[in-house]
Amino acid sequence: MTHKVLLLPGDGIGPEIAAQAARLLKACQEAGLDIDVEEGLVGGSAYDVHGEPLPAETLEKAKAASAILLGAVGGPKWDKIEDLSKRPEKGLLGLRKNLGLFGNLRPAMLYPQLASASSLKPELVAGLDIMIVRELTGGIYFGQPRGIEERNGERVGFNTYIYSESEIERIGRVAFEMAQKRGKKLCSVDKANVLEVTILWREVMERLAPEYPDVELSHMYVDNAAMQLVRAPKQFDVVVTGNMFGDILSDAAAMLTGSIGMLPSASLNESGQGMYEPCHGSAPDIAGQNVANPLAMMLSVAMMLRYSLNENAMAERIENAVGSVLDGGLRTADIASKGMQTIGTDAMGDAVLAA
Amino acid sequence: MTHKVLLLPGDGIGPEIAAQAARLLKACQEAGLDIDVEEGLVGGSAYDVHGEPLPAETLEKAKAASAILLGAVGGPKWDKIEDLSKRPEKGLLGLRKNLGLFGNLRPAMLYPQLASASSLKPELVAGLDIMIVRELTGGIYFGQPRGIEERNGERVGFNTYIYSESEIERIGRVAFEMAQKRGKKLCSVDKANVLEVTILWREVMERLAPEYPDVELSHMYVDNAAMQLVRAPKQFDVVVTGNMFGDILSDAAAMLTGSIGMLPSASLNESGQGMYEPCHGSAPDIAGQNVANPLAMMLSVAMMLRYSLNENAMAERIENAVGSVLDGGLRTADIASKGMQTIGTDAMGDAVLAA
Ligand SMILES: CC(C)[C@H](C(=O)O)[C@@H](O)C(=O)O
Ligand SMILES: CC(C)[C@H](C(=O)O)[C@@H](O)C(=O)O
Repeated sequence: MTHKVLLLPGDGIGPEIAAQAARLLKACQEAGLDIDVEEGLVGGSAYDVHGEPLPAETLEKAKAASAILLGAVGGPKWDKIEDLSKRPEKGLLGLRKNLGLFGNLRPAMLYPQLASASSLKPELVAGLDIMIVRELTGGIYFGQPRGIEERNGERVGFNTYIYSESEIERIGRVAFEMAQKRGKKLCSVDKANVLEVTILWREVMERLAPEYPDVELSHMYVDNAAMQLVRAPKQFDVVVTGNMFGDILSDAAAMLTGSIGMLPSASLNESGQGMYEPCHGSAPDIAGQNVANPLAMMLSVAMMLRYSLNENAMAERIENAVGSVLDGGLRTADIASKGMQTIGTDAMGDAVLAA
Repeated sequence: MTHKVLLLPGDGIGPEIAAQAARLLKACQEAGLDIDVEEGLVGGSAYDVHGEPLPAETLEKAKAASAILLGAVGGPKWDKIEDLSKRPEKGLLGLRKNLGLFGNLRPAMLYPQLASASSLKPELVAGLDIMIVRELTGGIYFGQPRGIEERNGERVGFNTYIYSESEIERIGRVAFEMAQKRGKKLCSVDKANVLEVTILWREVMERLAPEYPDVELSHMYVDNAAMQLVRAPKQFDVVVTGNMFGDILSDAAAMLTGSIGMLPSASLNESGQGMYEPCHGSAPDIAGQNVANPLAMMLSVAMMLRYSLNENAMAERIENAVGSVLDGGLRTADIASKGMQTIGTDAMGDAVLAA
């Protein structure tokens, strides 16, 4: 069966790094992978053409695809759009919501070759390997009511942080299963000393725990989690949390590795369909200069092969190729260090393909 | 005029560190400071006696005081209280709300003597001095509606993240004025690409900016702020944000210094009345062992003298005393390092008083 893969370059550095993913996909096809690759518009670049960050055509293609590869969306060019529903980010959020991609896997691991790139002391991050499981289609990102309106003679802005038991259970199971496959430790992050919604969150996690007796469940308040990530990140194995806290903590965790330009992520729905994207953003300041690091995007291809297409061997070949390129001393600017050779986006793509 | 100071030891290590603050206050009185010190119960220890984390008596005393010194609240002992309104944390939140202490100042500065205690590389944190201005009586901590209830056959938990223009303006002015007194850079943290409430937040900050032409205002999304704190914290001078984001970011920032046991905080209302507390929590795991670091609590006394009692000279004497104790090589366990002498809570109190 031919799998459909949809490539959505997006904005900023998106198109440059997506071009390297496209080359990699072609190489996979030549090596026997039976896929059909289409492209589509999303984010600011879709808004510029269609007046919508998620055109109907793109959504149709996405629904029909086994997997989606997304570059990045957003940039200052579109920050002034008054109507929030037209902003580039809404293209990304719309894809997540419409495809039901509730399970966001954000690994934060340190590449040994890049140990010195971390801002933390080497002994604190050597061997770091955290998996953050973030709920992606609920919580305050999508809660109703929301808006800005006049009350008592002045404007108020409001959003609703809301989760149902079934939403919590669903992401909880993903996290417990992930912990079973990894170090068997799961830390659930909430703010149950203040927020009712996270009291329910904690309760559901507690209720699930006996079904996964081999996993050690702990709970941590989000403020403490932010501290512990800075203080002693290696205490974590799998972390599970809601959409907003996951946004904040996964970015902090990724940055701990010093190599956010290396980190892919997966967003999965209940039928295993997935969207794969780099953890980094659209980096408009360096767009179009051929300096962006394409490795997170290329590793997103590997993650897709593993989670959506069941092609573990090919995924491993890509990961090994990236490893050997790093071993060979090649670096893009974001991970440059003394004694290493700094190269551009295209050249890094060449190097991975050659390896 | 005799100032009333209310000392609320609270829970966990609270009583131990509050005892050192009490000795320091006595020394200040002997040195001529005209204050009247009372004590009161708050948090779990108040719940144990009165069945309430904020007894009416404590609230009355707090209202009558010029300044409040609080140790810390909370601990596993009270985590099982079903009724959220009786938890220790509600004592603290009740004080903040009832006294209108909307302006929370959380400095994150690195003591040069403790440079090696940071988990970050020394060059990234040397000279670090950030002031986080956190809104403390609004946002999702207090928003209505909130609760857990049955909807469509299952339970849902929900909270409301809400700010009015006047609430935002009030904390914005505190932050702009703080920036004027410091490095003249203000970074406002929001999630305006997703949350309407923070779109209003950003708009109000923009509206205020022209009134403070000497301050350079910038905006950052909260996920990026969490990353930038880890990557390059010295880019920040003053940061202003809402209650929830402020909770998370100020703890991360404090931990960057490696010396969270050293950091005081102030929570002020419109009439200059203030509550002063350490940034660290109640640390139940080390309570009662005479190992807790009392310096954040003693520096909270200094902050109180400065912000609420206008006694700058005496505040400086305390800060200098702490500096010289550190210079002398004395450390509590949390900031211990090779070649330094590790001492207990009481002994550290002695040392500061002697200095
Ligand atoms: C672009 C933005 C809407 C998005 C989010 O907040 O989820 C991004 O920060 C992410 O983490 O994928
Ligand atoms: C104890 C808790 C309610 C409190 C908060 O979240 O505000 C604490 O974490 C703080 O930051 O002062």
